[in-house]
Amino acid sequence: MSNMRPIVMNQPSRIEIGAGVLGAVGQFVGTASVLVVTSPSVAKHVAAFGLQGAVTIYDRVPAEPNEIALQALLDVAAAVKPDVVVGLGGGSVMDLAKLAAVLWDGKQTLQEVVGPNKVDNKLSRIVQVPTTAGTGSEAGTKSLVADSVSGGKMAVDSPKMLADLVVLDPQLTFSVPTAVTAATGVDALAHCVEAFTSAISHPLIDEYARIGIKLIGCYLKRAVADGSDVEAREGMMLASFYGGVCLGPVNTAAGHAVAYPLSTTLHLPHGLANALVFPHVLAFNYDAVPEKSAEIAAALGFENCTSSAQLYDAAYSYCTDLGIDMSLQHQGAQREQLQHMAESAHGIRRLMDNNPRDMSIADILGIYNQAY
Amino acid sequence: MSNMRPIVMNQPSRIEIGAGVLGAVGQFVGTASVLVVTSPSVAKHVAAFGLQGAVTIYDRVPAEPNEIALQALLDVAAAVKPDVVVGLGGGSVMDLAKLAAVLWDGKQTLQEVVGPNKVDNKLSRIVQVPTTAGTGSEAGTKSLVADSVSGGKMAVDSPKMLADLVVLDPQLTFSVPTAVTAATGVDALAHCVEAFTSAISHPLIDEYARIGIKLIGCYLKRAVADGSDVEAREGMMLASFYGGVCLGPVNTAAGHAVAYPLSTTLHLPHGLANALVFPHVLAFNYDAVPEKSAEIAAALGFENCTSSAQLYDAAYSYCTDLGIDMSLQHQGAQREQLQHMAESAHGIRRLMDNNPRDMSIADILGIYNQAY
Repeated sequence: MSNMRPIVMNQPSRIEIGAGVLGAVGQFVGTASVLVVTSPSVAKHVAAFGLQGAVTIYDRVPAEPNEIALQALLDVAAAVKPDVVVGLGGGSVMDLAKLAAVLWDGKQTLQEVVGPNKVDNKLSRIVQVPTTAGTGSEAGTKSLVADSVSGGKMAVDSPKMLADLVVLDPQLTFSVPTAVTAATGVDALAHCVEAFTSAISHPLIDEYARIGIKLIGCYLKRAVADGSDVEAREGMMLASFYGGVCLGPVNTAAGHAVAYPLSTTLHLPHGLANALVFPHVLAFNYDAVPEKSAEIAAALGFENCTSSAQLYDAAYSYCTDLGIDMSLQHQGAQREQLQHMAESAHGIRRLMDNNPRDMSIADILGIYNQAY
Repeated sequence: MSNMRPIVMNQPSRIEIGAGVLGAVGQFVGTASVLVVTSPSVAKHVAAFGLQGAVTIYDRVPAEPNEIALQALLDVAAAVKPDVVVGLGGGSVMDLAKLAAVLWDGKQTLQEVVGPNKVDNKLSRIVQVPTTAGTGSEAGTKSLVADSVSGGKMAVDSPKMLADLVVLDPQLTFSVPTAVTAATGVDALAHCVEAFTSAISHPLIDEYARIGIKLIGCYLKRAVADGSDVEAREGMMLASFYGGVCLGPVNTAAGHAVAYPLSTTLHLPHGLANALVFPHVLAFNYDAVPEKSAEIAAALGFENCTSSAQLYDAAYSYCTDLGIDMSLQHQGAQREQLQHMAESAHGIRRLMDNNPRDMSIADILGIYNQAY
């Protein structure tokens, strides 16, 4: 654990974990007024919270929320003035819940809080209840909102958006479709792996990454094989949470940068985009971080991985065995788009600069072509 | 990670770690009014906090505070009405700081909040800055105060006493004497080991225990050998913190129960008392938890530990190599005290019932005699 540089960890002060623990929300909230931010498919779970005070349910969060969707939510929140905002859903829902809790009084606009530590006040306590295992948004201080004009993402990062309570109930993920379980599981894996192998990795955060990778090695295949395997679903919820822990102080690297244009240009879901590039970037980085790569391979059950090529084969098979169609072409990409996408990915320096091995535009294009 | 039962983790929402990070206190506090609870030997470090608002320093915390010492602190706190209470010191200081932050308005008495979840309100935000590595008090929700009449301990446990900020600066522990470093280091180890091998161990908390044990295996010998080894001191501060994390949801077991009379009857410091019994209880439990015992032995660098006797020899040598005098007789015990102490330890069911192997009064007496 050499070379410890100073580090700050922000973490939710209370986490309740287990099948059937949704009542923890009501116990935490008491008689306070609540705004539940959610989506129609999972809004029914509010009943299990056991809320006693005034409850407003806002279930109109779209899949890729932009500033217009946020404003619609803020209008409702401004009328409700909630003591507590509960996010019940996936990453987009939890990200919007965070912003609702700090912006509803209208004293700051979204534009004013984009960036790190720009938020002045936490107006409502925050409870996060994820219904997917992948983003890890519940663990962290960041919120991403799409810009309806540019199509890019605006990132707000503030400890004032940290959850006061996180409730991880694996039963909420039973209904997640197999393909989504697989892709979002690899996304959680990518959060841990990219932080673990980052040029700015940190020995302390490495330990959380190890826990997450180990959990995914134990449980992702099982969760894909049987969506009602409560132990596997719980393991994946925890892995996702620890992936979120890694995102705060270290963050991701080239993998998420290379995946980014797959979301923005091809409109692939975030999890799938990251799964598609995962084996390629893992193998690309092998020579820069051989010991950590070997540790990842061992935790995932890969055998005979003593070269970049072997690691690539093992990781690629791992993803296809999970049922993920790893072809960019099958996902709708066209050859002539790849150059522009590679340039776009290369420009995301805040992530690319974290990579343990420099990745050129030609390298990225090579990855896209290999994945095509 | 099978058999996950629901679990609650309370953890400080912000942790700053690294040599020279004390300025984080001032950044967190801003211009708010502060009461610093501390002891004379370490009070000088307040200067490095960079506090900007009104500051009151209370440095009269005794080594084993009782309800009278607490009341003296509460009288000062009631006059100050602090926005923030900072604990700067060891376990006793941090424990009193927690209570000051929730009791200073006089609406609840100490007696009214003894037990779990009895505290009504958090009156001040809490910052904890440990100056020793052992108790892990900064990580948790518990506070122990001695009863001046019975000599026993009163335990208050409430998430309202959780720190809002923990600052871990290894430089604060440079001046801890070698013998204290050794004994408190083994105490931190005991926190991790007892939770890890507990009858009520939890797969999630096991991971934190593993991190702590691994850190101690890497760094305790180094910290004892060179008190200014910043990396080793930092590793031990983290190990202590993770030991504290283990204390919340799982807690200790027979080891701390067997050590208890050494504190109350012989008046040994808490760390030393636990170090003295550590090899005995570790070996006693071997047959009940052979795999976890082997994992502990490996993390501590013990070789050839495939029996209780071998584990005992290795752990005992480990402690004596750290310079700890492991003889109860040398620490002032008399043979005729041991029977009463064994009965007393056996009566601490809240800890004894967590042990993976039932421990009779005769077993405890056997341990005391072996340690004599």
